[in-house]
Amino acid sequence: MTRAEIIEQVRSKASFLCVGLDTDLTKIPESLRGSSDPIFEFNKAIIDATQDLCVSFKVNVAFYEFLGIEGLEAMRRTLEYIPDEHFVIADAKRGDIGNTSTMYAKAFFETYNSDAITLSPYMGEDSIRPFLDFKDKWAIVLALTSNKGAEDFQLQQVGENGRALYELVLERVASWGTRDNTMFVAGATKGEYFKNIRAMVPDHFLLVPGVGAQGGDLHSICENGLNSDVSLLVNSSRGIIYSGHGNDFAKAARQAAGELQAAMEKELRLFGLL
Amino acid sequence: MTRAEIIEQVRSKASFLCVGLDTDLTKIPESLRGSSDPIFEFNKAIIDATQDLCVSFKVNVAFYEFLGIEGLEAMRRTLEYIPDEHFVIADAKRGDIGNTSTMYAKAFFETYNSDAITLSPYMGEDSIRPFLDFKDKWAIVLALTSNKGAEDFQLQQVGENGRALYELVLERVASWGTRDNTMFVAGATKGEYFKNIRAMVPDHFLLVPGVGAQGGDLHSICENGLNSDVSLLVNSSRGIIYSGHGNDFAKAARQAAGELQAAMEKELRLFGLL
Repeated sequence: MTRAEIIEQVRSKASFLCVGLDTDLTKIPESLRGSSDPIFEFNKAIIDATQDLCVSFKVNVAFYEFLGIEGLEAMRRTLEYIPDEHFVIADAKRGDIGNTSTMYAKAFFETYNSDAITLSPYMGEDSIRPFLDFKDKWAIVLALTSNKGAEDFQLQQVGENGRALYELVLERVASWGTRDNTMFVAGATKGEYFKNIRAMVPDHFLLVPGVGAQGGDLHSICENGLNSDVSLLVNSSRGIIYSGHGNDFAKAARQAAGELQAAMEKELRLFGLL
Repeated sequence: MTRAEIIEQVRSKASFLCVGLDTDLTKIPESLRGSSDPIFEFNKAIIDATQDLCVSFKVNVAFYEFLGIEGLEAMRRTLEYIPDEHFVIADAKRGDIGNTSTMYAKAFFETYNSDAITLSPYMGEDSIRPFLDFKDKWAIVLALTSNKGAEDFQLQQVGENGRALYELVLERVASWGTRDNTMFVAGATKGEYFKNIRAMVPDHFLLVPGVGAQGGDLHSICENGLNSDVSLLVNSSRGIIYSGHGNDFAKAARQAAGELQAAMEKELRLFGLL
């Protein structure tokens, strides 16, 4: 999917919502558990209920791998079921030496047909480059994450000019790819850093986890992160998919996604982007 | 598997060899390609041919994910087939926020029954801790990798005392776990750094990729990395499993593994560890 296609979808839906499918067998309604593929049935209902309110779906690969072969089959069916117009992210946090990264790229871009994969930058340029060689596919590289552990390394000062590691990551990774094949993960619980991230990568899309269960504030993200092409994808997983616990889970998910979409539309209007 | 069990196996086999199963469908002999599960058949033959010469097997998860559901099924069968005495590593380079890392830990420690998983430290303590809560299971954390990209971030100076990022990783990660549940990846092509790594983590096992195809030198690794409990696992993947290309591939793999085992035995005797 191209950058222009993503932006077009954002404008037409007045939404930059990514719905995170962190689907956990122990948290889905009792009524689905008798199905032969309860994870897929749950995801299908969530996708049907939210697809007009969001521009992207993100599968958290861990939740599928945990279930072994059956889980991966549910992930495969889910990725196949997501409508073509949506930007599909495999949240996998991969990154390895070149020949192995090429295999991960083929796995997620070809075998599973995702548009994008999340990557850890720790192993450097040759671990990221193989993902940039696929046309209209995206590397979404961790810069500043939303968890407490971000302080351990990402916020450490590097070099002599007092920059943090995440800033060096932004600078270097942005120089390897372009705004047409690279995005960055920027945690929403670190609202005070957004202004700086946007200044460093003015044109790149930012994938923002941490709204909802992790406590990020949408207005502050928009104030600091929006640009003239919007260039934000804000993810909510648990806050949407586990919004209800009974048989009306899909309706509850639609309600939660609708509230986020409305809040996003309000921000887009506030900043003159609609 | 406990640390004592690993050390006992190293001593009884006079080997600290890990055979890397980076199995690529395009590189296995023609004769196996007609099989219903050629990847597993190839791995089974390699395991049978090398299991008395090595103490560990490592699956490179990317190579299996690339093949979709069938690849994961081949990985599952391979992990099940490896004899219990071997230390089984899932080379997956994972790491995510806490609840997701817990899912990855369950995936590889329970669903796939590995003894260890490789992890990227970029997301910090809460991304690593979930892996340390499993009895007799191991987190193998990237410190200094063998690829060129290691220079981009791992070798950057952090803080005011001129340490490199990989040193901060060693120090912090070592403080979260113990020598009984944590190992570090230390690239063999960086022989000059081994002395420093061993000084910083005198008691931890180091997993050393990069011998063979990546050009690391065994003697220099041993000189700088061995301690009184050996505490090294040296991996070779392509150098062993693709040593032959015809129907005698397993024999050729045994030959290559045997040469490495003999070289390791020589080093162990040289340093008075046998």
